[in-house]
Amino acid sequence: MNEYKHVALIGLGLIAGSISLAMRRAGMGARITGHARTARTRAKALEMGLVDAVFDSAAEAVKGADLVILAVPVGAMSAVAAEIAPHLAAGATISDVGSVKGAVVAAVGPHLPDNVAFVPAHPMAGTEQSGPESGFASLFDHRWVLLTPTGSASDAEVQRLSDFWAALGALVEYMEPDHHDLVAGVISHAPHLIAYTMVGVADDLTKVTKTEVVNYSAAGFRDFTRIAASDPTMWRDVFLHNKDATLEVLGRFTEELFALQRAIRMGDGDFLHDYFSRTRDIRRSIIDAGQDTDAPDFGRVNPQEGDT
Amino acid sequence: MNEYKHVALIGLGLIAGSISLAMRRAGMGARITGHARTARTRAKALEMGLVDAVFDSAAEAVKGADLVILAVPVGAMSAVAAEIAPHLAAGATISDVGSVKGAVVAAVGPHLPDNVAFVPAHPMAGTEQSGPESGFASLFDHRWVLLTPTGSASDAEVQRLSDFWAALGALVEYMEPDHHDLVAGVISHAPHLIAYTMVGVADDLTKVTKTEVVNYSAAGFRDFTRIAASDPTMWRDVFLHNKDATLEVLGRFTEELFALQRAIRMGDGDFLHDYFSRTRDIRRSIIDAGQDTDAPDFGRVNPQEGDT
Repeated sequence: MNEYKHVALIGLGLIAGSISLAMRRAGMGARITGHARTARTRAKALEMGLVDAVFDSAAEAVKGADLVILAVPVGAMSAVAAEIAPHLAAGATISDVGSVKGAVVAAVGPHLPDNVAFVPAHPMAGTEQSGPESGFASLFDHRWVLLTPTGSASDAEVQRLSDFWAALGALVEYMEPDHHDLVAGVISHAPHLIAYTMVGVADDLTKVTKTEVVNYSAAGFRDFTRIAASDPTMWRDVFLHNKDATLEVLGRFTEELFALQRAIRMGDGDFLHDYFSRTRDIRRSIIDAGQDTDAPDFGRVNPQEGDT
Repeated sequence: MNEYKHVALIGLGLIAGSISLAMRRAGMGARITGHARTARTRAKALEMGLVDAVFDSAAEAVKGADLVILAVPVGAMSAVAAEIAPHLAAGATISDVGSVKGAVVAAVGPHLPDNVAFVPAHPMAGTEQSGPESGFASLFDHRWVLLTPTGSASDAEVQRLSDFWAALGALVEYMEPDHHDLVAGVISHAPHLIAYTMVGVADDLTKVTKTEVVNYSAAGFRDFTRIAASDPTMWRDVFLHNKDATLEVLGRFTEELFALQRAIRMGDGDFLHDYFSRTRDIRRSIIDAGQDTDAPDFGRVNPQEGDT
């Protein structure tokens, strides 16, 4: 494997922190430089050893790097790309970890010089937490990373990035940016918006107190709050930059929801039972694919025990 | 504490199994009899020691019991109540674990003789699994059980059932049936229907393959599939018997979803960011209330490690 010798992480949150920890776990000896917008985050990342050096500007952080990973909210990608472009090393690979790919290709690509390889990426893993302290080395283990290579990258350059992610524990797949955005709309963006909505509704209902919502949340609601605790800035940018796919999936969702509401109103128990049986099957497929375990989860954790 | 001497469990699934295991853990010496509809479940419950004896009919199982717990789908409550009514011991307490309370009061109450105490209950805990094998002793630990006592029960009889649940590890609260159904509609029933809908949409979208949905599910979708793997019969009955509250909450949900969709379409980033910040706060309250832990959850489990 042709390892990168100097990796620059632009943005030092959950994903960048986990990349650093997974690189060290894999025994990679690369120098890691970084940049984050706030002095607090920069200091924290340095203190935790996530980076060998931090810089006040992204331009300084990328100097001499043979791999630059943009790990900032999608809405910040264009400005960062414009800033770093004049400072990139010839032959460097530029990648990112944005949840949207079409918009990132459009925002970043035009700024880059001809002598670098641009290979957008999206690791399909995360937690509801953010900041450098939230990263962990196993985040990418057995999780998929989708690469949407552009014409600027040779097969060898794409393979090199693929090998990098595989060394961090991930499974790698290739996809067209538009198709990626639709897939992400279904399995990530629409579910997040729906979870945000449900939590907002519960918070708003005047006939049910907040204490009731909080205390009895183990009955299903709790799982939504975990997703709806994700970083607001990151997710605002995701929805603004994957507008078409998200709205398409939400349109289908609303149709289906209306069909189920109608079945409830009409008392059509067979329709409901058939629907719920079908969705149970897909859960089984996810467990079979190694993307979740069969262990019962919600309702189980006793925080008094879990916290110790 | 005035312990029950003979507890009859009608229905031997996740909840009844967990009640039995939690009773034994608490050191209760009560005789436990049971009935389930299928011979397989009856044999399994007996083999696992969840019951001291099983009976082919609910009528036989309740004979001599001073506590009878109906743990069958809500739609089956009326028929079971009619069957057991002539066989109930004088002074017995009749309770249930149904997720809906108004409909259960209406379905069960009229069948019961005057010399028993009827105290409906709803333990706000569960998992996506079903069957006697899925029960575990700690299911109710630090989880809320809502009691909706009827006029047939004295304060002492209500307190006795409350003590029983507390001994199983639960926290107990009292509520009017209608208010219970609205609370459950918000924190349990609507979230379940929404999760079922989202999983159904993903399964249906022709432009995204099932393999893609399954493989990349760790990006948020996976959490929905866990909820949407819950028992189809139980949930069909919940929706048919808590129609008004569920439809009311879903109506509010749709309004909110449309407002968020509109913000995405219009590019109103401030609206989205404010909304997502507010939902993050409620997550914090749930963790502070001991109803979940702050440990990062989705994206974390490596099934290869988790299964060993």
